[in-house]
Amino acid sequence: MRKPKIVVLGAGYGGLMTVTRLQKLIGSNEAEIILVNKNEYHYETTWLHAASAGTLHHDRVRYDIKKVINGSKVQFVQATAEAIRMDEKKVILDNGEVEFDYLVIALGSDSETFGIKGLDKYAYAITNVNAARQIREHIEYQFATYHNEDEKKDDRLTIVVAGAGFTGIEFLGEITNRIPELCKEYDVDRSKVRIVCVDAAPMALPQFDRDLVDYAISLLESKGVEFHSGTTVQEVREDSVLICKKGEEPQEIKCGTVIWSAGVRGNCIIEKSGIENMRGRVKVNLDLRIPDKDNIFVIGDCSLIINEDCNRPYPPTAQIAMQQGEVCARNLAKLIHHQDNLEPFVFDDKGTVCSLGEDDAIGVVFGKKIKGSSASFMKKVVDNRALFMVGGTSLVLKKGKFKLF
Amino acid sequence: MRKPKIVVLGAGYGGLMTVTRLQKLIGSNEAEIILVNKNEYHYETTWLHAASAGTLHHDRVRYDIKKVINGSKVQFVQATAEAIRMDEKKVILDNGEVEFDYLVIALGSDSETFGIKGLDKYAYAITNVNAARQIREHIEYQFATYHNEDEKKDDRLTIVVAGAGFTGIEFLGEITNRIPELCKEYDVDRSKVRIVCVDAAPMALPQFDRDLVDYAISLLESKGVEFHSGTTVQEVREDSVLICKKGEEPQEIKCGTVIWSAGVRGNCIIEKSGIENMRGRVKVNLDLRIPDKDNIFVIGDCSLIINEDCNRPYPPTAQIAMQQGEVCARNLAKLIHHQDNLEPFVFDDKGTVCSLGEDDAIGVVFGKKIKGSSASFMKKVVDNRALFMVGGTSLVLKKGKFKLF
Repeated sequence: MRKPKIVVLGAGYGGLMTVTRLQKLIGSNEAEIILVNKNEYHYETTWLHAASAGTLHHDRVRYDIKKVINGSKVQFVQATAEAIRMDEKKVILDNGEVEFDYLVIALGSDSETFGIKGLDKYAYAITNVNAARQIREHIEYQFATYHNEDEKKDDRLTIVVAGAGFTGIEFLGEITNRIPELCKEYDVDRSKVRIVCVDAAPMALPQFDRDLVDYAISLLESKGVEFHSGTTVQEVREDSVLICKKGEEPQEIKCGTVIWSAGVRGNCIIEKSGIENMRGRVKVNLDLRIPDKDNIFVIGDCSLIINEDCNRPYPPTAQIAMQQGEVCARNLAKLIHHQDNLEPFVFDDKGTVCSLGEDDAIGVVFGKKIKGSSASFMKKVVDNRALFMVGGTSLVLKKGKFKLF
Repeated sequence: MRKPKIVVLGAGYGGLMTVTRLQKLIGSNEAEIILVNKNEYHYETTWLHAASAGTLHHDRVRYDIKKVINGSKVQFVQATAEAIRMDEKKVILDNGEVEFDYLVIALGSDSETFGIKGLDKYAYAITNVNAARQIREHIEYQFATYHNEDEKKDDRLTIVVAGAGFTGIEFLGEITNRIPELCKEYDVDRSKVRIVCVDAAPMALPQFDRDLVDYAISLLESKGVEFHSGTTVQEVREDSVLICKKGEEPQEIKCGTVIWSAGVRGNCIIEKSGIENMRGRVKVNLDLRIPDKDNIFVIGDCSLIINEDCNRPYPPTAQIAMQQGEVCARNLAKLIHHQDNLEPFVFDDKGTVCSLGEDDAIGVVFGKKIKGSSASFMKKVVDNRALFMVGGTSLVLKKGKFKLF
């Protein structure tokens, strides 16, 4: 008898949680589990801002997938998924194809560019390890070039961060710590460096209360960040960005680096595969399956679940993806075991902490507002917990964040 | 009575040797000594190839000038010399001017570009600390960018070194050691990286005997370098270099980096100041003064002294600059002491060692040919000796090269 084939696309938070749970729930003779991922490593998306700023090495934010999966139960395929043929029950890969009986789409997000001119070409988005180390090196190269030009261009040293959401603010926290090191390395006067943050919304970090946001903004301002709220990016050029504050004339900011962190959308493969979606995200059933497709789950950044409290979708986070992964694994096990009482997914919001650099943060944890060093400590706890959930104590010891006094 | 003013332009090997010797030979009431240099630090020109390759940090190749001069006898002025007005006895600086009674021109060399199209714009020359760290970062950025392009461009990872003289070969020795590190850092397959060396002469390193050169070339070839001798660079473009082997059709090599190390000339200020010269170098008298100018010395890269043995000029090296500095200091002291028996300069060739990376080298020391680890050891002795000559034991301990077993 042929064993059913479970294919999981993506080894991010959701996909890896699904596979590491699933390998414990079903026997190796019950199903074939195939994990497909572009890279042979998993990376912590929530730490990429630090790798991009150069304050944390990218090897600290990634680990080998094979170290956390059980090779006797899970087959790992390094490939990029290019299209999903739902009716044919197969996935087209860049280096072949793979058939499935059950599919879990756990692919990450793409940058939302809103069709802004020049964005694709000239701005950098903090999307993966490759992008993070390129951002780090791009910024460093601007500093390295500064003293080599006959006419020194201070604009080279201007960094514009577009988007004051989670990623943008966390990146600002790190890059402001990195700048003094770069100034020292390249004999650059700190006063020549300009860090600008532009955001369309009237307030940064809309998910937090005003007092926490004020704390974060004041702190970053004291570290030299200029904020422009209610301001949209109109165009990104090779050496500048055109911004416009509501009701004012557009203004050009000359700069060496533009970081785009103003939003994400679901993976483009969703649209390409003809799955009904909203900006690349699929509104899934309570059991995390696509409506009318009882063998396909979508979890993580490509799934869309409404928060009934405010009637708006939950933002895509690591926390929700991991919780979905756990439910998805249990539901897959039920299907394999021919049980039809699939479990509904209910998000358990444990809180959110936004880092502001090495030693500072703001957040809400178990409903309590925190800021400063205690929030920074909680951030490390959250980060270590994600490692523990996937790889247990040994992974925490290898890749965890500790401050030794 | 007004004290005579001695102005020394440049704190390279020659200038710094002049000043550190001179401050011991004359009393502070006998003359005013002014040292003018662009940067507040001295750098070891002979180590720049390693800083450029990224195998030695640039802070290891430079030190603070004030640490080796006697502040009670020597005034340090951080400025760039722009023109010398010999008749008015003054030097025009970028931030003012300085008058002199005696002048020592100890400025370094400029790159000789032979009017090759695109060279100034697209090629990098290993000329100073600023250039070295830009080269390091430029190459690193090529690696960082590799995995971020939809279509991977292997050419980004091609480095063309134009010039198989001392600097070119020493750079190749270091960069071949650095490549495996870069490959690891950016997940790049070593086989994608190409290192090409192009040289117009039929043989690399013409100052050494054939057997030593063969040893060097074989070693670098085994580390992956492709050599094209008898080949000239016709043009440097943004992403390629056009080369031509004698009697063949021109050939384009696509590449991400072009390092120009095919020759130097004297400093452009010499020509701008109307001093008689050959490619920026001044044929000085035996006492190191400019003919008919009894108050102006030229030493180091801008001086030209004929080697009577072969009737050709000595190449500009750290060794000759330092020996000139010692004679120049003694001759200045004589002038201050109203003695007219100035000492003639006689070059004492102690030998030359060319590094081929961390653990290998070729050379001739006290007339004896050496290669391999013993030559590499001698290279470190030579490097440490240069530090000792200027700053004594303490500078050797701070900046010296030691291998600890």
